[in-house]
Amino acid sequence: MDASDVERARGLTPGCAHVLHLNHAGASLLPQPVLDAMVDHLGLEARIGGYEAAEVAAPQLERTYAAVAELIGADTSEIALMDSASRAWDMAVYSLPIEPQDRVIISRSEYGSNAIALLQLKQRTGCQLVLVDDDQHGQIDLEALERELAEGDTALVSLVHVPTQGGLVNPAVEVGRLCREAGVLFVLDACQSAGQLPLDVNELGCAVLTGNGRKFLRGPRGTGFLYMRRDLIPLIEPAMLDLHAATWTAPDRYEVRDDARRFETWESDVAARIGLGVAVDHALGWGIDAIAERNSMLADGLRRRLADIPGVTLHDKGAQRCAITTFTVAGVEPEDVKGRLREKRVNVNVVTASSAQLDLPHRGLADLVRASLHYVTTEDELDRFADLINRICVR
Amino acid sequence: MDASDVERARGLTPGCAHVLHLNHAGASLLPQPVLDAMVDHLGLEARIGGYEAAEVAAPQLERTYAAVAELIGADTSEIALMDSASRAWDMAVYSLPIEPQDRVIISRSEYGSNAIALLQLKQRTGCQLVLVDDDQHGQIDLEALERELAEGDTALVSLVHVPTQGGLVNPAVEVGRLCREAGVLFVLDACQSAGQLPLDVNELGCAVLTGNGRKFLRGPRGTGFLYMRRDLIPLIEPAMLDLHAATWTAPDRYEVRDDARRFETWESDVAARIGLGVAVDHALGWGIDAIAERNSMLADGLRRRLADIPGVTLHDKGAQRCAITTFTVAGVEPEDVKGRLREKRVNVNVVTASSAQLDLPHRGLADLVRASLHYVTTEDELDRFADLINRICVR
Repeated sequence: MDASDVERARGLTPGCAHVLHLNHAGASLLPQPVLDAMVDHLGLEARIGGYEAAEVAAPQLERTYAAVAELIGADTSEIALMDSASRAWDMAVYSLPIEPQDRVIISRSEYGSNAIALLQLKQRTGCQLVLVDDDQHGQIDLEALERELAEGDTALVSLVHVPTQGGLVNPAVEVGRLCREAGVLFVLDACQSAGQLPLDVNELGCAVLTGNGRKFLRGPRGTGFLYMRRDLIPLIEPAMLDLHAATWTAPDRYEVRDDARRFETWESDVAARIGLGVAVDHALGWGIDAIAERNSMLADGLRRRLADIPGVTLHDKGAQRCAITTFTVAGVEPEDVKGRLREKRVNVNVVTASSAQLDLPHRGLADLVRASLHYVTTEDELDRFADLINRICVR
Repeated sequence: MDASDVERARGLTPGCAHVLHLNHAGASLLPQPVLDAMVDHLGLEARIGGYEAAEVAAPQLERTYAAVAELIGADTSEIALMDSASRAWDMAVYSLPIEPQDRVIISRSEYGSNAIALLQLKQRTGCQLVLVDDDQHGQIDLEALERELAEGDTALVSLVHVPTQGGLVNPAVEVGRLCREAGVLFVLDACQSAGQLPLDVNELGCAVLTGNGRKFLRGPRGTGFLYMRRDLIPLIEPAMLDLHAATWTAPDRYEVRDDARRFETWESDVAARIGLGVAVDHALGWGIDAIAERNSMLADGLRRRLADIPGVTLHDKGAQRCAITTFTVAGVEPEDVKGRLREKRVNVNVVTASSAQLDLPHRGLADLVRASLHYVTTEDELDRFADLINRICVR
């Protein structure tokens, strides 16, 4: 993206005039076309009725499936839309046939929601959770993973592509290759990578990939998606069913549909789903490679600026790093840092140790400040941000 | 509601100027304040960020819980918000401990989504589904229910208060009384009654009640709610968990929260949830009793008009009837009736036999036209509607 692209992107982002937003990993700033599409659809619902508006918008809704499929190199039939990435991940993982002797491999990047779900599944099924440790870069140790996979009885490997608590990018393609070689299902949580890093399910070799709309895809809240590989879909009966996922064919019989939408429920926020499609198309319009390149450059610059400030400690791990940076300020609680920045209309987030139990406590860390930028961020904004952090330090 | 109330309600409903809407049981017409609340919040998200906007809107979000609680006579801690009523029903019912020897009692009103879920649970747990037949009014036979409850081993009674396929209102209070006497969980699907009929969980004696926003509550699409009785909540671990429902307290431990929000997921469409609260307050503002009274009067009038048209057959059952009417037109397919009406900007829906397998095929019926009115409907509109149906008949 060149300077004129960035200017154009900022012009299409109302929030750029109001806030210095470094919380794109929480929820990004909606582009105007996404906002417009949602508001237009809600207005149509009010004018002609919710069902009737959905009929009118049927092509736009189908485009959302196609856009998400295009984003990750999948087929439209492999995509289900959800109200969150957690729901998407849950509907896939809770539906997998996990047996008492099965092993489920996780890494230190595992996200709180996934970990809680897996602990519940462990309790319910008797399966074993196996933690593969980090390598020297802080990413999942591929050799250790390979050894664990060689043990057999692994039902799945769950990997968080980009964890909530830092800039780390896990080597998902390599994990996918090892899973493929071992014939093990690879479940990739791409919540924090979708929209900022290229994703190709064929290259990744994942059986399941989940993402949401509100983060780096800059889509609406209350949106998420599930990809499941075509050959698996008919084998996996969803953990829950409704009459969209299945058809009630006789008083005592039902038939589950044969595409990924078997994991959906009938009712949905149509406006939000349309907004998601517009957001994905917006991202595809800039190009994910171009976004990734710009974000990498900006994030390196942010880390350099922060590293120069006495009292600031950076906590990002990883051989490859992304648009997320976590840090602490000596003597100032992360929530206080967030609060003082908020007074200046600067948005960051705090990641809690309890959302990253396998990582932060293990590293002797508690809560962290998280600054997550995106391609609409400018060098000037990063200068201003570093200046504000500097003042918080010296005060 | 007097004439001036109706005029005011219509003035607050942009759709009244555009369509003759008799699809309130599908999705009603949004009141302007609901639309405004959603659009305002989406605008705020675009200006300051999605997380930051949610923090600002925290009191409004809390009001949604309180408004739903007020609507059904519950405590706020007994309410969970969902993206659909199906999801709400599923999260409750799939979480119940159902054993192989258990019996689950259903009626002919059972909704397709619930029935499919129960058939899946039957397959999964080995439980038995027991159908209690209709009485002479076409509602659940209370004496037959009492006999079935006396058999013992009943895990729950699932009742649809108002079915999708007609004007029937099931005697939910009496079912609740029998369940209470038998010590059996009563799960009430109030999807089609919430917003058009008074609901009081203490009077109903239900353990679980589910509803959605888009129908007679006139709220946003993609919203639903779950009520679970306070004493049950700690006993029922949700079928799925995330880090909103539970806290990850140590690498191998989690604690599930102790209110009904344990059935929620963290992420949600905040704008839609705010809209739901405004919609419930809007309904409470008119008064549910006043709404029910007006709707009953209007629906009686609609049925009289339709009954007078040669070639029209009404299919509503029930000793008590509500704002929904289903009918067929001799020689014209329901979808054609719907299509011809749509050309005149008149909205009705078609209920399919496959969504009501225990009822419509049993009565020798296939698909039906469904006309569902609400308090914004006028006598003039019903005259015009009857006239249009009359023309469809004689053509």
